[in-house]
Amino acid sequence: MDIKERIIEKASRLFQQYGIKNVSMDEIASSLGISKRTIYENFKDKEDILLSALLRFKQERDKHFIALLGQSPNVVDVFIKIIEEHQHMPICNVRFFEDIQKYYPRAAKLIREHVETNNNYLRDFLRQGIKEGYIREDLDVNVAAFLVEETTYTYIRASYLEKPPFSFQDLFYTMMINFVRGILTGKGIRIIDAYLEQQRTGK
Amino acid sequence: MDIKERIIEKASRLFQQYGIKNVSMDEIASSLGISKRTIYENFKDKEDILLSALLRFKQERDKHFIALLGQSPNVVDVFIKIIEEHQHMPICNVRFFEDIQKYYPRAAKLIREHVETNNNYLRDFLRQGIKEGYIREDLDVNVAAFLVEETTYTYIRASYLEKPPFSFQDLFYTMMINFVRGILTGKGIRIIDAYLEQQRTGK
Repeated sequence: MDIKERIIEKASRLFQQYGIKNVSMDEIASSLGISKRTIYENFKDKEDILLSALLRFKQERDKHFIALLGQSPNVVDVFIKIIEEHQHMPICNVRFFEDIQKYYPRAAKLIREHVETNNNYLRDFLRQGIKEGYIREDLDVNVAAFLVEETTYTYIRASYLEKPPFSFQDLFYTMMINFVRGILTGKGIRIIDAYLEQQRTGK
Repeated sequence: MDIKERIIEKASRLFQQYGIKNVSMDEIASSLGISKRTIYENFKDKEDILLSALLRFKQERDKHFIALLGQSPNVVDVFIKIIEEHQHMPICNVRFFEDIQKYYPRAAKLIREHVETNNNYLRDFLRQGIKEGYIREDLDVNVAAFLVEETTYTYIRASYLEKPPFSFQDLFYTMMINFVRGILTGKGIRIIDAYLEQQRTGK
């Protein structure tokens, strides 16, 4: 991996863990064992690293999603795989999103663009599921795609709860399983319920 | 209806329609054909009317919910009736919620208390549904109750969309139908899907 890639990867991880404001260029440099000057030879400023990180994340996500589509026998299976993957991902610090909204307008704009592209993918994906008979044909795909977007905000608001009566993992899991079961037809629900049963009994 | 009740009812309607800041004591008085003095004989200020309106709304909602529970053969039926009722309700102006958060701390506190009580009712109601076999026994009721609370914020954020590709009625309907289908067992889904089929075919 070249130095530019290494900086992006390390910075992403630090940003997600501590937020963006909280991470200095010095810390990024020292945690990579390089000089700050090397960072500035590759990036104009912190927002520049952030923008590269967001683009890289988007590219990887798209690539991964396309691979998932190729591997999965049906849309329900794609949802299940995404839910499973998220359960093992580290939780992103809510400050990451807050800092972007407050201090990094170019990053906020980029995220809005990404959300819009994702929304288009998602709508196509839902339509495919409807055609295949796994998703209810009376589903309003525009509303459904908006509800998926909303899950990020739900996560942000949960992080403001003084004493949340659940973990973020539980929140994500229940929210996603519920969403998916809500949009599926009987044929689709049979698949996800078989999966849930398997999880519960550990078989 | 005595004058106090009439003031509360008229003010509630105006607040929901235009927000709270936008409605003056003069407007409340003139739309009731009474003097501003009469209002001040009954209420200290606008927030005082607002607090009375919130309490009244809460009482009516609780009374109505208890009546629904008594009339309905099962929890699925209660959800369907609530969804149906909301479809015919006027949409509340998003400023109503925003004004409360920004300018009326006592009202915001009261709403938080009401949300908490509702949350407790809702959890009991979900547990009852689990016991009756209509709601999945592996459902995390704490997360589910939080997701219901969240629907208000989803509505608020939808109102910020520049060109929403759906109406608020569609948003509410899809969001609620999806939520309910998501938490139900096969036995519960058969009831709601029969209802949806009936709606679709108009029979």
